[in-house]
Amino acid sequence: MNKQQILRNRPFGEPDDKTWELVKSEIPEIGDGEFLMKNEFISLDPAMRGWMNDAKSYIPPVQIGEVMRALTVGEVMESQNEKFKKGDKVCGTGGVQEYTVTDGKGFYKVDPTLVPLETYTGTIGMPGLTAYFGLLDVGQCKEGEVVLVSGAAGAVGSVVGQIAKIKNCTVVGIAGGREKCKYIEDELGFDHAIDYKNENVKRRIHELCPEGIDIYFDNVGGEILDHALTALRRKARVVICGAISQYNNTSAPKGPSNYLSLLVNGARMEGFVILHYTKRYQEGLQAIGKWVSEGKIKTHETVEEGIDNFREVFMKLFSGEKRGKLVLKV
Amino acid sequence: MNKQQILRNRPFGEPDDKTWELVKSEIPEIGDGEFLMKNEFISLDPAMRGWMNDAKSYIPPVQIGEVMRALTVGEVMESQNEKFKKGDKVCGTGGVQEYTVTDGKGFYKVDPTLVPLETYTGTIGMPGLTAYFGLLDVGQCKEGEVVLVSGAAGAVGSVVGQIAKIKNCTVVGIAGGREKCKYIEDELGFDHAIDYKNENVKRRIHELCPEGIDIYFDNVGGEILDHALTALRRKARVVICGAISQYNNTSAPKGPSNYLSLLVNGARMEGFVILHYTKRYQEGLQAIGKWVSEGKIKTHETVEEGIDNFREVFMKLFSGEKRGKLVLKV
Repeated sequence: MNKQQILRNRPFGEPDDKTWELVKSEIPEIGDGEFLMKNEFISLDPAMRGWMNDAKSYIPPVQIGEVMRALTVGEVMESQNEKFKKGDKVCGTGGVQEYTVTDGKGFYKVDPTLVPLETYTGTIGMPGLTAYFGLLDVGQCKEGEVVLVSGAAGAVGSVVGQIAKIKNCTVVGIAGGREKCKYIEDELGFDHAIDYKNENVKRRIHELCPEGIDIYFDNVGGEILDHALTALRRKARVVICGAISQYNNTSAPKGPSNYLSLLVNGARMEGFVILHYTKRYQEGLQAIGKWVSEGKIKTHETVEEGIDNFREVFMKLFSGEKRGKLVLKV
Repeated sequence: MNKQQILRNRPFGEPDDKTWELVKSEIPEIGDGEFLMKNEFISLDPAMRGWMNDAKSYIPPVQIGEVMRALTVGEVMESQNEKFKKGDKVCGTGGVQEYTVTDGKGFYKVDPTLVPLETYTGTIGMPGLTAYFGLLDVGQCKEGEVVLVSGAAGAVGSVVGQIAKIKNCTVVGIAGGREKCKYIEDELGFDHAIDYKNENVKRRIHELCPEGIDIYFDNVGGEILDHALTALRRKARVVICGAISQYNNTSAPKGPSNYLSLLVNGARMEGFVILHYTKRYQEGLQAIGKWVSEGKIKTHETVEEGIDNFREVFMKLFSGEKRGKLVLKV
């Protein structure tokens, strides 16, 4: 049997116990060109919250009655697809379920001998690529610049800061709580951390970046975005990667009141989704893989267990009770 | 004697009768390297409202007790500056006063035989340059794109739309009132106009631009910016030129709630001030001058009289009771 988390109701605000239903169904037979994958790790990402809204976006929303969409990594159990054979470890949009039958579109093989399997949902996966293209392509990060990143202990932010350090930038990370701040400073090599739960973020940004910031990489939105906008240098870039503080809002997101800082500083605010970079994934994965193998980028996953606990674990994305990449072990 | 408008109190919200004081003072003697200019036209620009706030910006604020800063065009009456001679028509930051004594820094000569003198405060001046570099350089306008512009009957917006038409774009302008809408459609050649005072702006944008917009050139901010953000195409550019709806706010400006449209569309919002382009003014003025002489760009100035009436005339920038460039004839 296949345990699946089915989307039953679109959440208004935070997902609750009516949002998904855990069901058991027969594992379907595979057809010609298909394979059966046993999902070992399910990636939990803030973007999933957006996929649940009935709104025009960069991909269609998950439909009511469908298995909740998620990236997964796991093993091919049976295959009638010539590109994938039994025993291969693969990554793709497997969904929140134990087993996936797929034609393999969008799936790719991963090597479990290089890094633990779950790392392919994090640093050597979409979050790592998001950090790489967001900082270097959208943000046009240059050597020696001042880079501020929010969600700095998270899957994307932690890699953004480490890549910026590789580029010899001054890097300030914003994270919640002393422990995370210590982690990004002591273990990841950020120059400074700001604890948004215990410090005056605006004042600390200006203290730590007296000349202003060249890049603000935003994962959170809300007030922190507004504070960062007060510290832009001429020609600064604000990379809009996410806005996790706003995803469970029941009213319109808070718009950045200080956006006219873009005008007076000739600065720009630019958004992106990693799906726009599919043609360049190999470039990104090779660069990140090399840095990981050289020890220049450290990775961390918070692994929680059990598909039955999907909702409780998913909510840790928003409460901040996790570090690095959040994954669900099936 | 020299009539001058002196900044006496920084306005909180709209300027009122305590903001400026009209004084009469002796015309100073010119010194070595200086010249005396008789201001014939004073340029009234939304940016002047920003110069009155005691806040860090792209130039220092006007100080209390100083002559109100403004661009002017006029005639050299006496000169001890070798670059400017008696009888030259010149343009520069002359201030809201009848006579200016200056060392000529930032001043340049204009030719009154080509266009009326007041046009050098508009289309063949800062507003024209703002339109030119904002649309083509910041907005990276390409042939055949869909361009939406607010403040479309104003000094900058009217030129933005006409340049976009020269680039074979589909151009939609947003303006206040039937008369202005008719003007931009019938006289300036915009494809469509939206009357924000009488139409549902969001619905009309989507009706007139069913495939979305490539460029939104924003002069107004506020709700109209938010409506435009709902209609962005992939890789769209939002050019932040101004936010006249917000300049007299007594609280923080309204931030654009729909800014996450930048994320899902891989779009960007970029600001600029024309002072960042000083090195390229000649390029811009030559291009605009050519288009004006070919009849491809039409210019219009609303000329009001009397330095005594400065405040009443200035407020027409915000009430919308003017068309094209607003100038005060001294």
